[in-house]
Amino acid sequence: MSRVPSGLWQNLIALQVYGANTNVGKTVFSTLLGAHFVKRAGKRRWSLHYIKPVSTGPATDADDAYVKRHVKGAAVTTLFQFKDPVSPHIAARDAEFIPTDDHLVRRLHAKIKVNANQFAWEKHMGLTIVETAGGVLSPGPSGVPQADIFRPLRLPVILVGDHRLGGIASTISAAESLLLRGYDIAAVVCFDDQGQYHNAEYLKEYFERKNIRAVTLSWIPELEGCTEEEERKAMKRYYEKHSESYEINELSRIVIKQHEDRLYTMDKLAARTRKVIWHPFTQHKHTTNTDDILVFDSAYGDYFQTKHTPASLTGLSKSGRPKDVTDKPIFYPAFDGSASWWTQGLGHGNPTLSLAAAYAAGRYGHVMFAGATHEPAVTLAETLLQGMKNPRLAKCFYTDDGSTAAEVGIKMALRATCKRYEWDGSTENIGILGLKGSYHGDTIGAMDASEPNIFNEKTDWYRGRGYWFDFPTVKMKMGEWVVESPPGMTEQLGGQELFPHLDDVFDFEARGAGTGRRWWLYEKYIRSKLDDLVKRQGLKFGALVMEPILLGAGGMIFVDPLFQRKLVEVVRSYSFSPVDPPTDPLHWTGLPILFDEVFTGLHRLGPFTPSSLLDIHPDISIHAKLLTGGLLPLSVTLASKSIFRAFLSPSKADALLHGHSYTAHPIGCHVANTSLREMETLKRSYAWKDFRRGWDPEAGRSEGQGEGQAWSMKRRQGPSNKTWSMWRRSLVEWLSYHPAVDHVVALGSVLAISLRDSEGSGYSSNAAAGLRDALLTDRSKTAVNVHARVLGNVIYFMASLTTSPKDLNAVSEALKQKLDLVSGVETAVSRKEEYEEEFEQFRWMADEEVEDEPVRTP
Amino acid sequence: MSRVPSGLWQNLIALQVYGANTNVGKTVFSTLLGAHFVKRAGKRRWSLHYIKPVSTGPATDADDAYVKRHVKGAAVTTLFQFKDPVSPHIAARDAEFIPTDDHLVRRLHAKIKVNANQFAWEKHMGLTIVETAGGVLSPGPSGVPQADIFRPLRLPVILVGDHRLGGIASTISAAESLLLRGYDIAAVVCFDDQGQYHNAEYLKEYFERKNIRAVTLSWIPELEGCTEEEERKAMKRYYEKHSESYEINELSRIVIKQHEDRLYTMDKLAARTRKVIWHPFTQHKHTTNTDDILVFDSAYGDYFQTKHTPASLTGLSKSGRPKDVTDKPIFYPAFDGSASWWTQGLGHGNPTLSLAAAYAAGRYGHVMFAGATHEPAVTLAETLLQGMKNPRLAKCFYTDDGSTAAEVGIKMALRATCKRYEWDGSTENIGILGLKGSYHGDTIGAMDASEPNIFNEKTDWYRGRGYWFDFPTVKMKMGEWVVESPPGMTEQLGGQELFPHLDDVFDFEARGAGTGRRWWLYEKYIRSKLDDLVKRQGLKFGALVMEPILLGAGGMIFVDPLFQRKLVEVVRSYSFSPVDPPTDPLHWTGLPILFDEVFTGLHRLGPFTPSSLLDIHPDISIHAKLLTGGLLPLSVTLASKSIFRAFLSPSKADALLHGHSYTAHPIGCHVANTSLREMETLKRSYAWKDFRRGWDPEAGRSEGQGEGQAWSMKRRQGPSNKTWSMWRRSLVEWLSYHPAVDHVVALGSVLAISLRDSEGSGYSSNAAAGLRDALLTDRSKTAVNVHARVLGNVIYFMASLTTSPKDLNAVSEALKQKLDLVSGVETAVSRKEEYEEEFEQFRWMADEEVEDEPVRTP
Repeated sequence: MSRVPSGLWQNLIALQVYGANTNVGKTVFSTLLGAHFVKRAGKRRWSLHYIKPVSTGPATDADDAYVKRHVKGAAVTTLFQFKDPVSPHIAARDAEFIPTDDHLVRRLHAKIKVNANQFAWEKHMGLTIVETAGGVLSPGPSGVPQADIFRPLRLPVILVGDHRLGGIASTISAAESLLLRGYDIAAVVCFDDQGQYHNAEYLKEYFERKNIRAVTLSWIPELEGCTEEEERKAMKRYYEKHSESYEINELSRIVIKQHEDRLYTMDKLAARTRKVIWHPFTQHKHTTNTDDILVFDSAYGDYFQTKHTPASLTGLSKSGRPKDVTDKPIFYPAFDGSASWWTQGLGHGNPTLSLAAAYAAGRYGHVMFAGATHEPAVTLAETLLQGMKNPRLAKCFYTDDGSTAAEVGIKMALRATCKRYEWDGSTENIGILGLKGSYHGDTIGAMDASEPNIFNEKTDWYRGRGYWFDFPTVKMKMGEWVVESPPGMTEQLGGQELFPHLDDVFDFEARGAGTGRRWWLYEKYIRSKLDDLVKRQGLKFGALVMEPILLGAGGMIFVDPLFQRKLVEVVRSYSFSPVDPPTDPLHWTGLPILFDEVFTGLHRLGPFTPSSLLDIHPDISIHAKLLTGGLLPLSVTLASKSIFRAFLSPSKADALLHGHSYTAHPIGCHVANTSLREMETLKRSYAWKDFRRGWDPEAGRSEGQGEGQAWSMKRRQGPSNKTWSMWRRSLVEWLSYHPAVDHVVALGSVLAISLRDSEGSGYSSNAAAGLRDALLTDRSKTAVNVHARVLGNVIYFMASLTTSPKDLNAVSEALKQKLDLVSGVETAVSRKEEYEEEFEQFRWMADEEVEDEPVRTP
Repeated sequence: MSRVPSGLWQNLIALQVYGANTNVGKTVFSTLLGAHFVKRAGKRRWSLHYIKPVSTGPATDADDAYVKRHVKGAAVTTLFQFKDPVSPHIAARDAEFIPTDDHLVRRLHAKIKVNANQFAWEKHMGLTIVETAGGVLSPGPSGVPQADIFRPLRLPVILVGDHRLGGIASTISAAESLLLRGYDIAAVVCFDDQGQYHNAEYLKEYFERKNIRAVTLSWIPELEGCTEEEERKAMKRYYEKHSESYEINELSRIVIKQHEDRLYTMDKLAARTRKVIWHPFTQHKHTTNTDDILVFDSAYGDYFQTKHTPASLTGLSKSGRPKDVTDKPIFYPAFDGSASWWTQGLGHGNPTLSLAAAYAAGRYGHVMFAGATHEPAVTLAETLLQGMKNPRLAKCFYTDDGSTAAEVGIKMALRATCKRYEWDGSTENIGILGLKGSYHGDTIGAMDASEPNIFNEKTDWYRGRGYWFDFPTVKMKMGEWVVESPPGMTEQLGGQELFPHLDDVFDFEARGAGTGRRWWLYEKYIRSKLDDLVKRQGLKFGALVMEPILLGAGGMIFVDPLFQRKLVEVVRSYSFSPVDPPTDPLHWTGLPILFDEVFTGLHRLGPFTPSSLLDIHPDISIHAKLLTGGLLPLSVTLASKSIFRAFLSPSKADALLHGHSYTAHPIGCHVANTSLREMETLKRSYAWKDFRRGWDPEAGRSEGQGEGQAWSMKRRQGPSNKTWSMWRRSLVEWLSYHPAVDHVVALGSVLAISLRDSEGSGYSSNAAAGLRDALLTDRSKTAVNVHARVLGNVIYFMASLTTSPKDLNAVSEALKQKLDLVSGVETAVSRKEEYEEEFEQFRWMADEEVEDEPVRTP
């Protein structure tokens, strides 16, 4: 995905002219508009630059020459010219050089940026018209539809309507294709065909009803049978006359006003936000400055389009009009380093997901789900149940977010336990078992399932109900994976264990057999704790609730998977009540096991479910976040039949009387189905195989031993390691040696770095804030900006599942640079020379910039 | 909106052929496909019917004649022929008769239905090809785009791609326009232009990657310069040869398979649902039969497309293939009488909302909101705060549903109270005050704010925390509005009060002055209760939480607004702690007042906020359901500055540490902005003025007194009554006299009928179930089916804000018929002859059916 800023400058209006079809008069329109602006629109002086990114046909016929000829003083550029007069994707087949989409967008951006600089120097306002080829979705040289290629710039669009028979339909459809890709349509223009089909009249009315401005343009002179000279003269007259017409004046007012409005909106949005918005998880005493609020104009792929803080907007007067002519860009792209609070999977502004959302909205809107059903909800339930590969899970209950899914899961578990053990949950205190540092959401029920902590301690109705175990953790330190017990508990839980590979940590057989002592210590520790709670204190428990492998909000704590396995095993075999356990192996025993996979599930850590890494089959699991690929809220609670049956009775009052209005809303379900299908194909992609290969314990060994043949066979089969990360192993190891770093964890798309902090760790710590700020605020030319989130002394980075190795490398390089910078280290530890080589590679990728070229004036 | 069934039959495949543009070969394709099927496709005998709903140009040139000529035995029909060869909306201008969209769709449906019958009689399978005019969004006779006009039938589409230059773009855009209107595209076909532009090749690859089938068709013979006879011969050869080609065989397999798959899916969906879905609020012990589950294929406007229960699908073999040739329709339209759990405002499948959702998805996807902002979220917050016209409210906090919004509101209120009164909410029990029968959601915190009831009593962690007042209610009985105190409390709260008009119930001045005793009784009752709770029992309270006017889930209980006013007044002046109240009039005093407007707000009861009817300014209000017009989950909690300030402190731990991943998701916010704008225009619509006029207390009087001039002036000014309903006053009065009815309430889009029930009322009662079932299951020809929900002995009907008077009348008439039927009353009470006249009118509207006509074989 192109890391370019969206195209908004103070002194330059960059417009993209799309046609509803080919041959609708795009170039005539561009010329007309250009001629108008050059004559000075809105009492300013304007310079015009016309850019044709891709042109096909003989260069002598090219649109740029045409514009140049008719608009005095226009600078014109064609970025790529192909000689066949066909669609660019066909024309490019025989070309020597086919630009990638990324290259095309960066070239275009660089070109417009040069304009901005040049116009600023000339003290003019600038209009840059970018005219596309063919229709909105005509393929570019790569074969990708143009509106997708140019989306990162998100230039305001003027859509030239089709005046011919059938043109109403094609114009509206073209507009819809633009809108569903997140474009703003500045105006629709249509040449008035003087009473033949009346398209212009219809379109004007139609679009204005939809709050899109529309302008009718005077008919182009009849040129059939004219000589070249006659044609030129006729058009000259046309441009002279109509470039000062009422209609084109109206259009230029619209365009200028929208530009100013957009600048004004961007300028004021932080202040408006401060006035009316109560932010989540925010101490507003600290947000006294509007600069503290990041303003997002849009997002695409892995990047936010973020507004520069006011410092760069000093040229704006109160009304949003530039006081001086300044070439300041308004946005910079920032890598979405928290995957927008752990939700993103398939990139922002993904057109496949937009269309899926629109389809379900068009087919159903929302339809109520009580006593009813629809296909997307059932298919999603089936897909999830199959994907979990857990023979216990049989039923799917829909809610809206992770917190409500947790509430439902807890209600399910408590009822099942109370029913079997004949406890009265309405009078007796039934607790849950869990891990220290757990988090399941912010509604009271979900809060009560976590130990007292900073999130809940000031919540008046919070009453932590349960017991939360200490546990050993997994960390990479100095290049090795360490299993470490909490301070002062090494006697109970064992000392450090070291492993070269993460897969070894998950090799339960080896760890049970090799260091049987730890397996046994875990069992002893858990049993004695339970004996104390249940037998001695007489407490009652209704469920074991935990996040498998990684405790997210708790600070990205990596739990020793062996401990989680042991805990489940002990809880399932423990006698919490004298009632005999059922014999059916799919029924829960001891207590129901609830896995909160809201953060860790659905490929966030690699596999469909992290429970497969643990080889545990929970009785209940909850899922949200990535479920819709990162588009909109939806959550599910999956449950076993044995849990489901606890609610069966002749009485309605015994049912699970829980529901939300938008339960199983079709848009969410259909988008989720689409997302999960896309993720399935990702799983088999080369990119993912390469990520996995980078963490393959065998890889180094085979290569080292030079077993050429075996290795190449293995390459064909693909790597077989269970654990891997999208973040390179070399990066993770590098970090783990860094003097400012205490330890690192990486799994799937997650990378978390615990920084050394003399003031102690925890949520209220500020250790990582410096690194976070350095990553976001570097405005140097080659800086890769990253928007990261911190949890106390932990800074973490989370990619989308579609993030490219190139983008990951750029972020990695930025991270290393800034870590050195803020920690005052020249270059951290360089354990092996091999890293050096990779640094070079990173650096090369980060530096790769399209050269700015001067404006071509042919 | 057309109340027609979606077009799916067992023995008939009805396809709609749309063109990516005009002149792309739609008719040639239709003829080719027809010729193929007539020759027998898939080992069956097929009859062909070709329908052109709207044709323009001379009838002699018409497409139907062309198809008839080339396909032996084809029946052909043109429904409307306009003679000018231009777009139908232009051609229709001079026509004597312009069909409405509704008429057109019903004529088309009737025509296809006749086919189904006829083919069944002939023991053939049938293929009906409906060929549209121009492109997908070309306007029909009414000027509305065709894809919108024909959407109620939602026929599977074959999209004929454009083979010309620019055709890739127009074909993909046309497909996107179809998808965002909820159409299923059976296939995209494109004529292979033999190597000129290669569109067919590109489109095949593009669409198959998007999981849409695409087929390339052989090029149409060159006919330029041919005589009519030569042309006919050339085409005859073409059809003969290519109607048995590999490609057309592939296409017919696709079409037949998709038809069978759709039948199969519909047949199995209830069983699949029963297997994997855990339904909300459902005792699954009672859902032992798949017939208990309504299967929705889609929805449009006010109507679900609901699958007939299996009884009507006996013709399906296990594989979903029709065993016998049967003309059974698969779907029937059912009015969404619960507004899909109170959410719907702008109709299902609203293309404006679909496009709004797609735009925001394309522009942002989801972007994280902590420490950040985006334009839709800020605009929505501002719009809501302005719309509330409540000078206290200043801040907007986003969550996902009504229940989470309630949790946030409660957390806010409790903190504000505990902080000011210096209570420790983490150890002391702080309760809330409310009304009996209240409901605020299903998460534990929201549950705890309601008194013990059937919804929560079996929830193990539920602990009702607070006190809930008895209160007098408003009911229409025997044509009059009665304010009634609960049984045994008339001494404390006063006896009955009667009012002719609902506005009188809200005339607080008159009621305070006229029957001062009641005002005083309310005060005394509330104060003495509070004294008992606070002074005698020493209880502590943190908020007054209530649903203004109508308690929804509690059984659509209409609270005496005078009581709610009094309760707020007393709570605000009561001394819950020795701490002195602040003097700023915008600060909360006594306790913060939280209004749960999730159900009652945003025009559900008429005005933007029901608090304006009560003339109360709450300190906190919560909103969801209608917020997005009924599309997808989003909720807000609005709060006053005084509440907001309670969370300001130097410590992050004092902040409102609440948030969900999709907080303020841009799709929800942008759809909400679009919805609220649409609702604003509705407010000023003629339809809404007429609804209001029907409840104007002045209306009858003026008319009765024959004050012609004053009346007509009043008509110009519009009615000024505060309260009104979309349901006719005459209907509500009729119901209130019905012997089976205890009382009725109606306000805004809500109508609730309390049926007399000897077994007692309440959630577990089954009194209204008979009426509900009668409304849904009548399969007689003229039946208007309504999907209604019951709450114990209460059956309620809730319209969208856009439901037309015609549809409301049809539902009203069905309701009256079925009420008579299930209660065994001939015709209830006919108090005045004037009703008789209206009944006639209703009946006429309900019976209005398009005549079935025989297939025209010209």
